[in-house]
Amino acid sequence: MAAAAPPPPPAPAPITLPEPTPSGHTLFTRIRLATAEDVPHIHKLIHQMAVFERLTDLFQATPAALSATLFPPNAPPPFTSFTVFLLELCTSPFPPSQNPHFTPRLKSLHLDLPIHDPEKEAFRSNASDANDDVIVGGFVLFFPNYSTFLAKPGFYIEDIFVRECYRRKGLGKMLLSAVAAQAAKMGYGRVEWVVLDWNVNAIKFYEQMGAQILPEWRICRLTGEALRAHAHVNL
Amino acid sequence: MAAAAPPPPPAPAPITLPEPTPSGHTLFTRIRLATAEDVPHIHKLIHQMAVFERLTDLFQATPAALSATLFPPNAPPPFTSFTVFLLELCTSPFPPSQNPHFTPRLKSLHLDLPIHDPEKEAFRSNASDANDDVIVGGFVLFFPNYSTFLAKPGFYIEDIFVRECYRRKGLGKMLLSAVAAQAAKMGYGRVEWVVLDWNVNAIKFYEQMGAQILPEWRICRLTGEALRAHAHVNL
Repeated sequence: MAAAAPPPPPAPAPITLPEPTPSGHTLFTRIRLATAEDVPHIHKLIHQMAVFERLTDLFQATPAALSATLFPPNAPPPFTSFTVFLLELCTSPFPPSQNPHFTPRLKSLHLDLPIHDPEKEAFRSNASDANDDVIVGGFVLFFPNYSTFLAKPGFYIEDIFVRECYRRKGLGKMLLSAVAAQAAKMGYGRVEWVVLDWNVNAIKFYEQMGAQILPEWRICRLTGEALRAHAHVNL
Repeated sequence: MAAAAPPPPPAPAPITLPEPTPSGHTLFTRIRLATAEDVPHIHKLIHQMAVFERLTDLFQATPAALSATLFPPNAPPPFTSFTVFLLELCTSPFPPSQNPHFTPRLKSLHLDLPIHDPEKEAFRSNASDANDDVIVGGFVLFFPNYSTFLAKPGFYIEDIFVRECYRRKGLGKMLLSAVAAQAAKMGYGRVEWVVLDWNVNAIKFYEQMGAQILPEWRICRLTGEALRAHAHVNL
């Protein structure tokens, strides 16, 4: 038979937590078509990618060269040639915006902690409708490719990049999915990109998104002098 | 000491060989831009490629789908989108021809034996300037790609194919070199394509042409239902 239970200790004073401020830990995101005004940011993002991949020795891009090749005068419509989606982030909601070629994709993320962005000043958006709190966080560059077996175009993703302080929050997935959604909308046959074979985390991530990894194909590249040598010979 | 040698047999009567007829064993070749009129041949060539690669289960191309995607109304200029070079062969020289976008590349091959083409009838050229002896022998399909590190376009070769009876004569090399020469002429940064890792003969051939094989990259592909699933979600 159990001893009589001691009297319960006095209940602790209830701790009153402040109501969470929804906007404080909410990050609003937008994926939109990039324009020539975004070139300075795109240039910095590509350079950060080169640093991340330890390939700065191959980095030769200048803002002028990016402008001339990505946003030439009389540029063809988006999706028919080189196309850039830019990822923007803001602590307040984005205004509704219209673009005849692409309706920006909006999504809000609920985070435990606000993100400290040490490069906020350098990455303030140049969008005409952006306030000072809109920050560029990443990009994806893609262009049409073609499958002769399907007799259909597709998209090839050359680069996808999210700045370090915004990683591991599903933003890369959002960029990739925006390209896939556009391909599906246009009736295209496939979306392709490449991954380094030792990058097992990326491979796992891509497989979870429904991608197949083709183990047998290898990329062949003709560049530099070996390429220029073909200009003057008729083999 | 050797026995006296028997008298030599009478010398055989000299065999008089006919003078080789230069045109009889010369094959004239032309690489030119394909047009919508070439679609029936392009379709047959793609099908032959699928048979060669044992991938006929993936072959879905129809002439109508190829026409609509490769030669749409208001098609952009060659080299800015999907572009096809056609390889033609003839036992007599090609007439001079002009094209504002691409001057056909001509070369003559000297062969020990004439080539027997069992499909000559099916592959008579539809070129407006071609006589009945001009035969389609192969093609290469390519389109612009982009290097962010170089801030330059390049070309990606999706398919390169030479019909069986014309192989091992340097014609594949001529098609590849025509693309490389065009890239070099346009100041492009590189030409890329893929090869199966077990196809050691092709790898050796590409390396001899100056290409690097990139061992670490793997192709990721999102297609079919996995692609279409992205049309309706905002990940």
